Formats: sequence, C-alpha cells, structure tokens
Amino acid sequence: MMHSRFLARRMLDTRTSAVRELLKYSKQSGMISLAGGIPAPDLFDVEGLREALDSEMRSNSRDTFQYGLSEGEPILRQQVSLFLKSRGIHAKPHSILITSGAQQALDLVARVLIQPSDVVLVERAAYLAALQVFSLAGANLQPIMADVHGLDMEDVEMALSRQRVKAIYVVPSFSNPTGSTLSTDCRRRLVELARQYNTVLIEDDPYGEIRFEDSRPPSLYEIAQDIPGAEHLVIHTSSFSKILAPGLRTGWMVVPDIFYSYFAVAKQAMDLHTSTLSQNIIARYMSSGRLATHLPTLQGAYRKRRDALCSALERHLGSDIRFNAPKGGMFLWAAFAAEVDASDVLKHAIDQGVVFVPGVHFFVDRPEYNTLRLSYSTIAPASADEAALRLAAALRLTSRR
Amino acid sequence: MMHSRFLARRMLDTRTSAVRELLKYSKQSGMISLAGGIPAPDLFDVEGLREALDSEMRSNSRDTFQYGLSEGEPILRQQVSLFLKSRGIHAKPHSILITSGAQQALDLVARVLIQPSDVVLVERAAYLAALQVFSLAGANLQPIMADVHGLDMEDVEMALSRQRVKAIYVVPSFSNPTGSTLSTDCRRRLVELARQYNTVLIEDDPYGEIRFEDSRPPSLYEIAQDIPGAEHLVIHTSSFSKILAPGLRTGWMVVPDIFYSYFAVAKQAMDLHTSTLSQNIIARYMSSGRLATHLPTLQGAYRKRRDALCSALERHLGSDIRFNAPKGGMFLWAAFAAEVDASDVLKHAIDQGVVFVPGVHFFVDRPEYNTLRLSYSTIAPASADEAALRLAAALRLTSRR
Repeated sequence: MMHSRFLARRMLDTRTSAVRELLKYSKQSGMISLAGGIPAPDLFDVEGLREALDSEMRSNSRDTFQYGLSEGEPILRQQVSLFLKSRGIHAKPHSILITSGAQQALDLVARVLIQPSDVVLVERAAYLAALQVFSLAGANLQPIMADVHGLDMEDVEMALSRQRVKAIYVVPSFSNPTGSTLSTDCRRRLVELARQYNTVLIEDDPYGEIRFEDSRPPSLYEIAQDIPGAEHLVIHTSSFSKILAPGLRTGWMVVPDIFYSYFAVAKQAMDLHTSTLSQNIIARYMSSGRLATHLPTLQGAYRKRRDALCSALERHLGSDIRFNAPKGGMFLWAAFAAEVDASDVLKHAIDQGVVFVPGVHFFVDRPEYNTLRLSYSTIAPASADEAALRLAAALRLTSRR
Repeated sequence: MMHSRFLARRMLDTRTSAVRELLKYSKQSGMISLAGGIPAPDLFDVEGLREALDSEMRSNSRDTFQYGLSEGEPILRQQVSLFLKSRGIHAKPHSILITSGAQQALDLVARVLIQPSDVVLVERAAYLAALQVFSLAGANLQPIMADVHGLDMEDVEMALSRQRVKAIYVVPSFSNPTGSTLSTDCRRRLVELARQYNTVLIEDDPYGEIRFEDSRPPSLYEIAQDIPGAEHLVIHTSSFSKILAPGLRTGWMVVPDIFYSYFAVAKQAMDLHTSTLSQNIIARYMSSGRLATHLPTLQGAYRKRRDALCSALERHLGSDIRFNAPKGGMFLWAAFAAEVDASDVLKHAIDQGVVFVPGVHFFVDRPEYNTLRLSYSTIAPASADEAALRLAAALRLTSRR
C-alpha cells in the first residue's frame, strides 16, 4: 500500500467496522432493523427541545454562538451535578467535564491514561466502539468472562494478580451488547479489587436511566467515594444520547480531582470544547424540569418494545433461540443452538427483510459464533411479530455446521 | 506525583497553556483584551442563524436530533464543496470530512498520520494549539525560519534534505500569530518540495476569508492537483468558527482519497460525528445565500478594527513598537525593542487594564522575547486608542534588560 508509509502505525490495525457496513442494509426500504444502537426518533421530546432552543435564542443568542470553556458551560455542569445527585452520585460541578458524547469521553480516557501495551480488561463481549478506541491507543485488551449476571469476579482477580492492569472498562448497567447488569455485591468487589491493585475503573453508563424496574444498584463511582484509597480510581462517563438526543453530541464524565486538569488539557487539544449551542439547550431543558418527566415516558415506551420483541421471539422461534429479557437499556443478547452461525443466519435474514448484529463482532477473542444482538429500541411493538417471523424464516434456511 | 503512574507518557510533557491562564484576565471588568483569538460576537449574524434554526425545526426536527454519519451530513458536505469551488478549490463532497472545528481536524491529522518521533516542520512562530496537538502525538516539531512574508524556503529545503519529514504544517493565509501570508511563488515551491520529498502538507486555513484586499493566492490543495504526484499530499483544513459562529464547533477538512477511509474511522472513534444540529443549521444558512453576503460585512468590520489599532499604536507607541499591518485575519504581530521582554510588559499591562499574548508562547525554541501578538477582532475602533494608551503606559513602566 502506497499510503502506508504515511500512516501512523496505530491506524494499520484498526478494526474496520463490519457493523458500520451492516447498518447500510438498515436503510433499505421495507427492512426491519434490529441492528442499530440508536434511540427511537419518535420518542424524542422535540417540543421540549424546541422550547429550550427558542428560550435560548430569545435571551442568550450571542453567547451561545461564541467559544466556551474546555471544561464545559458552567450552567450545564451544574445541571449534570444536580441530575447525578438525584441518582445517588455525588459529584460537584468542578469534577464534571462536558464531552462531545460518551464516545469522546472514552477517547479522552484512552488518550490521557492508556500507554501502548497497557493492559485494559473488558467484558468478554463488549461495546465495539470502546474496543476500537482503546485499540487505537495501543491497549492490550484482555477479555474477562461474563454472563448475563455480569463479570466473573474470579476471572477479574486472576487477571489483576498476574500482571499490572491499567484499567478495567465496564458498562455496569444494561450493557451493550449483553444487556447484563452487575449486582451490588459484584460492584463492591470490583471497587475493592481496583483499590487493592491500584487499577482505574472506567464506568461507562449511557443506559442506566433506561430502566424497566425500580431497583438501582449503586454506581461504582459512588461506592468508591466510601472506600479510602479508591476515591480517585473511578471515572464515570455517560451521555444525553440515549435519554434526550444523540444529534446534540453531548455527554459528560466525572473525573477524579487528581486527573481533572489533564483531561481538560486533552479535551482542549481535541476540539477546544463541545458545541455551546448543544450545551445551552440541554441546560435549559434540564432546568425546566422536562428531563425528569421525559424519562418515565421513555422507560415505559422501551419496556413495551422489549416485551413485544421478547414475546414475538418466544412465539416464532421458541426453543431455537435462548435469551434473558434485559431489565433496561436497548439490547437483547441471544444465542441460537451451538451449531448455528449467526453470521450465516444474517445472510438469509437480509433476504427476508430483517437485520441484526452477529455477536462475533463484540468479542476480543474466541467469539461465540451462535450469539447475536437484537436491538428493540426502534421497533414499534406492532412490528415485533413480523421481525421475529422473518428471523425464524432465515433460521430455517440456514444450514447447520 | 502519585497520579503519574496512571498517566500515559504523552500527558507528562503537555504544554500547560499559559495562554489559557492569561485569558482569565480578559474577563476582568474594564479590561481591554487584545489577547483572545475569538471572533467578535457583535458581528455574528444572529438573525440569519436564527432563521436557519427555525427553518430546520419546522421541517426536519427529528432527523436533526438523531445520530448521523461520521463523514458528516451529506447536505453540508455538498454546501462546503460549493463554497470551496467559489474560492477556487475543487473538492468533491466525498473528499470532505466534517469535523468538530478545525482543532479536531488537526487532531485527526495527528492521530492518523503522526507516529511518535515523526518530524513535523512548523513555522518558527506557530499556532499554539497545533503545537500542542502534534506534541501530544509525540511529533518531533522542528521550527522553520519565517518572517511576515512567510516561510524561508531555503530553510524548508534544508530541513527536508537532511531527514525524513512526515509533514509540514502551515497557516498560509493571515497566520496565527504572525498575520503573514505565503506568496504564490512560495506556495508553488512548497508543493513541489512536498512532492520531491514525499511529505504531507497540512494547509490550515481558518482565516482565508477574513481578507482586506482582493488578491487571493491559490490554495496549496489546488496547486497540488496540477502537479502529478502531489495530488494526495495536501490536507486542507478550515472551519466556520471565524466566519460564522465558533459555538457551533463545526469545521471541515479536504482529505486525499488514499487517506479518506482512515480519517473516517478515526473520526468515528473520536466522537462518532459532529453535532447534527450544528451541521444542519450551517447547511441551511449557506444554501440560503446568507454566508456569501455576510462575508463582506465581516471583512469590512475587521478591516476597520485593524486600521484603528494600527493607527492607535503608531500614535501612542511610535518607534517603540514595530509591526506590519496584516492584510487579513485577526492578528497583528509586533515587536518591542530587543531589550524589552513582552512578558514583563504584560505584568504592567494587566495593571493598566489591557492584556495581550507575549510572543514567547508561540515558539518551539529560541523565542524572541520582545515579540507580542495583538488581536483586534473584538476591539471596537473607538476602544483602540485607549488600548494603545494603556499599552504605552505599561511599556514606560517596564524596566529594560
């Protein structure tokens, strides 16, 4: 390759995103997509966002088009702090850094903390874009055994005891892709291990508010504040993409004091700051109280979609597919019989008019070829039956290994 | 430092931004700031932007709050392509990548192309945030002699001939900090040298449209398209920050075909994509034709500010300060007598109620301590006299070396 002499080495082994290619099929007319990880546009509170926009334009239009602080707009940092407090996370505004979505928060973590060949532990099936961003930073990614109940803590401890581990990356609530949630015991143990082995915990929590039950295990960040020596070890990241509007590209991170200035400098180098307009609209939306009333609407709607997809799968695929209904988030992690390759099923599924993501893409190593990720977020309950019918038809057409 | 065992090595020698600290003084009541590099908020076309926003909300509000493509919204890439064409740059929409400001474009270049210890040539006094982002990528920055007429081409050739040079970074029009513009001959020679030595040219052009005279030297990108073997060597970056609204955090880059997919993957890893709302507002604003009519207004207003500051400096500092009036952009690069340290003057200037950036911050090595950067962009013509008076008073109070 003639261009390879120009490229930085880190670019030569980037994971080309097969999922990115796959999403092109989603746009075909008549296709039912269970592949995306996107929120439902019909659930956007467009009216509330528009009111926030109008109010911003009436009173603050010049500031909102001007440069802002790399750390984020003070009013939004204040609103995020209040929001987190109502969720049991006590983080002062000066610990909060506004980012251009949670993806940038992960990129910031990679940039500030990860040295090439640093060991980073990830769940065995993990968020694809996180794997990509840590790989780009040269991390040595090591998968930890996990099931629908979360991480295998013995496997975590074994990995920590045999080598220096720089960081552990987890999506503790309603994980992408597995939908699993770490129990409170598991969370406490994880923070204790982080303290014992002096390892950073990256708590990525974009789905925590899309919950279908009342129980809410404590955040790793909050647990760490009560364990002397662990206070500075948890970095918490989240975003407005799943609960408000991804197009505004606004997220946040809670950064321990000892690291904060480094993250602010890196953020400045990356894009100076996040869109002032996006930040100010969101701050107004939050201070108007609408986010608090919008969340139950979202939760109810996504719960209905989960229920519809789960029962349609049971109805049309029965024992040909195994899954646990997730208690929140947007993803249902499923498996066909061991001798079925989900990538083979996908080929027939595209012909049948339904797409999903084969599980193979989420594994760092030794993939389980029979797994798949189904997203119900954009599937109206009325379409779930047809989606499952098409999936069943595709499975029947697939030859076993 | 207890936290240093966690940090990636690249963070340990980041240039802590003294300028960032300095800008805090700008906010003090009564302070006249010649320090910022920000556009004048009173010149924002708030009415036009608001119309674009309203029109977007009326017709496209769900899409504008949803995820978009990493490459950028097709309508904006189309508009940027048309805009560039009217400026003599022929770049198809599929060569354009929308970024979260020009800063992110530079970060993308650093990420995709710069390997630690790669040599990158920069103008001897260069844009601070570019130095920062290339340093973070581990570049070996080497300064090239330059004056108000631009780069010393013999020095460029010497640097190219004695080592492998990965890239040359230039702000060819109305440079930050020096206000200098490369002549057409100099541009042609630079592209020829890039071809001869197989070196990437990073053409950073955020100020090109803020021009006070009719002449417009051809862009490096366009020159390269006519030189066989150089077509893929120029990456052109720019943004809407100086000509429209920095708060929207939207810029663009023109990327040669052989590199494009790598930049798209890196962009996806960094923040998935730039704010859909920002992109769509700008596309509507451009397609309405308002940008074309707004530019002459901006150019006229900034020219008046330049004129006012130049004559005030002549009036109150006379031969105590040397400078060439820039022919565009936002910055006036000046020098006191050799025995005066601009950082010493700044201390007194803060007391007198005026701030500026000492030139020392823009040098990679062997700084010229008597230089300073004065920005006229936010100084109303009526305040220029007072600014120069205060600067003159500060200079009188400064002891010579």
